[in-house]
Amino acid sequence: MKAYGQMNTEELLALKEELTAEFEDIKSRGTSMDMSRGKPGEDQLALSMGMLDVLDSSSDMKSQGTDTRNYGQMDGLLEMKKLLADMVETDPENVIVYGNASLNIMFDTVSRSMTHGVMGSTPWCRLDRVKFLCPVPGYDRHFSITEYFGIEMIPVEMTENGPDMDTVEKLVEGDEAVKGMWCVPKYSNPQGYTYSEETVRRLAAMKPKAADFRIYWDNAYAVHHLYGEKERQDWLPDILALCKEAGNPDMVYEFVSTSKVTFPGAGVCMAASSEANRKEFLRHLQIQTIGHDKVNQLRHVRFLRDMDGVREHMKKQGELTLTRFEAVWKLLESELGGLGIGTWTYPRGGYFISFEAMDGCARAIVAKAKEAGLTLTPAGSSFPYKKDPKDSNIRIAPTYPSVEELQLAGRVFVLSVKLVTIDKLLENK
Amino acid sequence: MKAYGQMNTEELLALKEELTAEFEDIKSRGTSMDMSRGKPGEDQLALSMGMLDVLDSSSDMKSQGTDTRNYGQMDGLLEMKKLLADMVETDPENVIVYGNASLNIMFDTVSRSMTHGVMGSTPWCRLDRVKFLCPVPGYDRHFSITEYFGIEMIPVEMTENGPDMDTVEKLVEGDEAVKGMWCVPKYSNPQGYTYSEETVRRLAAMKPKAADFRIYWDNAYAVHHLYGEKERQDWLPDILALCKEAGNPDMVYEFVSTSKVTFPGAGVCMAASSEANRKEFLRHLQIQTIGHDKVNQLRHVRFLRDMDGVREHMKKQGELTLTRFEAVWKLLESELGGLGIGTWTYPRGGYFISFEAMDGCARAIVAKAKEAGLTLTPAGSSFPYKKDPKDSNIRIAPTYPSVEELQLAGRVFVLSVKLVTIDKLLENK
Repeated sequence: MKAYGQMNTEELLALKEELTAEFEDIKSRGTSMDMSRGKPGEDQLALSMGMLDVLDSSSDMKSQGTDTRNYGQMDGLLEMKKLLADMVETDPENVIVYGNASLNIMFDTVSRSMTHGVMGSTPWCRLDRVKFLCPVPGYDRHFSITEYFGIEMIPVEMTENGPDMDTVEKLVEGDEAVKGMWCVPKYSNPQGYTYSEETVRRLAAMKPKAADFRIYWDNAYAVHHLYGEKERQDWLPDILALCKEAGNPDMVYEFVSTSKVTFPGAGVCMAASSEANRKEFLRHLQIQTIGHDKVNQLRHVRFLRDMDGVREHMKKQGELTLTRFEAVWKLLESELGGLGIGTWTYPRGGYFISFEAMDGCARAIVAKAKEAGLTLTPAGSSFPYKKDPKDSNIRIAPTYPSVEELQLAGRVFVLSVKLVTIDKLLENK
Repeated sequence: MKAYGQMNTEELLALKEELTAEFEDIKSRGTSMDMSRGKPGEDQLALSMGMLDVLDSSSDMKSQGTDTRNYGQMDGLLEMKKLLADMVETDPENVIVYGNASLNIMFDTVSRSMTHGVMGSTPWCRLDRVKFLCPVPGYDRHFSITEYFGIEMIPVEMTENGPDMDTVEKLVEGDEAVKGMWCVPKYSNPQGYTYSEETVRRLAAMKPKAADFRIYWDNAYAVHHLYGEKERQDWLPDILALCKEAGNPDMVYEFVSTSKVTFPGAGVCMAASSEANRKEFLRHLQIQTIGHDKVNQLRHVRFLRDMDGVREHMKKQGELTLTRFEAVWKLLESELGGLGIGTWTYPRGGYFISFEAMDGCARAIVAKAKEAGLTLTPAGSSFPYKKDPKDSNIRIAPTYPSVEELQLAGRVFVLSVKLVTIDKLLENK
């Protein structure tokens, strides 16, 4: 098939007619499909059902002396700290175990900085301007938090090696209003890129203008590899150790959860950071809550056991995810390959494939797909203020539908891309 | 035995010698006892172990169509809403289900008011003065929250019918800086008083000077009766309904949890309020988190079933608590009765007995008890800024020790009261 850009008006119109017929046919079936969020599929959830068997009324509910059923042990069970630390390859001493959602810790941390500042700095709510760097495309829910608190978001271009570090360094080291930076450093949302060692080292070595500048290191997909073989997995250095080495021990808050290891909503999450930062987290936490769910922590450690257990579990999950990613890739390649109307990423882990349409087409493609019953993440979501300046990025989330559903959903997607692009090309003729 | 106030110096000194001998004897045993917090005992926790059997790997994990293992249903399972609403006798429609700790909702609500105001009001962090009314003695962790946010706390005297309403009305209706009021309306912490219907009606009918004034109605002990017979239980009207009737639909946030029904830390909690307030809660929640633990909600509804289930469960718990309360009362009566050196409350539910020592003695009594290995709640804790103006109130929390341990702990307590009071009386001779 000829690249669309080389077709003349007649060819494009003929193609449009043909594709429209196919599109209308699918549309008439009235199917409802969802590829909008990074949501585990049923088969993936089934892998964790054994977690419901590890505790029953005859169980020993103690963890290293702590009765998990009662108050106490605000910072979490030792064995849970160990497991979560191992997942991100950091020291268990760095860890505070929280509740069910790492997003909640990030929100609360921003909120605390607004009302109480960071380690004695002026509370951000009293400052005229507070800015966060936002690698783009990025995770929409990060951007929602900073938007909610009126924090100005500065987009920084992502590359395959992480955010454009020249820009990051210039902004962080030159502007005292820059107080934070969002990062999904491994299998990034939505592109699936992993920060290179050089990027991580440069981040760790920055000399921020603001003493209360912090990197929000959301290591959400730390163990979410598509492939079981180690050499086909991405690796990320322990930024906390690198920061310490570089004389910046307090510059990073790291987050991870088991939301996409066991059950979303019924998982366990953590924050890892320096001793001084942990003290500040705990001072706040002791006022905020009576402690987190230690029974669920116990359930997790009894079920997952240790990193071998996690690896074994995630290998099965990776296989299920890979099947879906491959189904999408196959369709994209066979249907869009060589047409010059879109590119997409090939991550080795995580939950998403990032699709780059022709400039100015993303919003229309998402709307078109919706017509035929396919819900995609709203275009622009991966950008601050939901504004994609090029209107080209679409996040594909293939984990929830079954492979069968994906076939149809994928068809709707490629048809939508084609039809919208043709219209765009015709407009420009 | 003669009242201490009528003894002369000689008598007091002789008594002191005798009591000191007994005190030193216990002290020499080196026992460690804890009556400092409202913490369930082992036998009470055992009552909920069946909750670990209701879900296993073969369970249907759906609740009215919702897969509890996945994202979604931000405001909680319908059946959980119903159960929590029934516990406080309000409409399930009023309810948003949260995580494991109602204290956390209260904290977050104050925090949100600081950063975002209340329904469009000026964010409290931009105001010069924000005040909360604090019925005293009250719950220390409420006061810690308001202190943490720099909110000025105004103590209001508690009576057996609730806070002194003349004062409350005057302050709420006369001062725009008064933005909130802490209440534990049923089996109050620490006295165990329940607000009378008249008190609740007067609260509901107030005309606050500040449009963003809210009552924080912490109905923590709603179902925590000591006695199974209905006529021996306290009853509290549904303040949300009364507020609506009085034209103040948005004035109250109500909170409750199962922390002391099932497992502290592994329970489920809620906020109940008007539609407009719930909208504001949810707008915040959708940014703050990906949702709460619905698997634990399912576990709770499968285990407790309905209000009959809750009543049956809490009847057993009440029996265990009552045995402990009775052990304490018996000791107080036989050892302190008629001496004129202390009074105490006889609640019909909740977790605490409140003890009033002679003015100026509470701090010294707590310190004295500590000498012999008994940890009590620090004196002053039940007051804003931890300052009991009369230094007379001590909170007794008898639920954690066994009845056997309570015998010894109780002896230490009464000996400490006696010895400290004698010193006080001698000082004043």
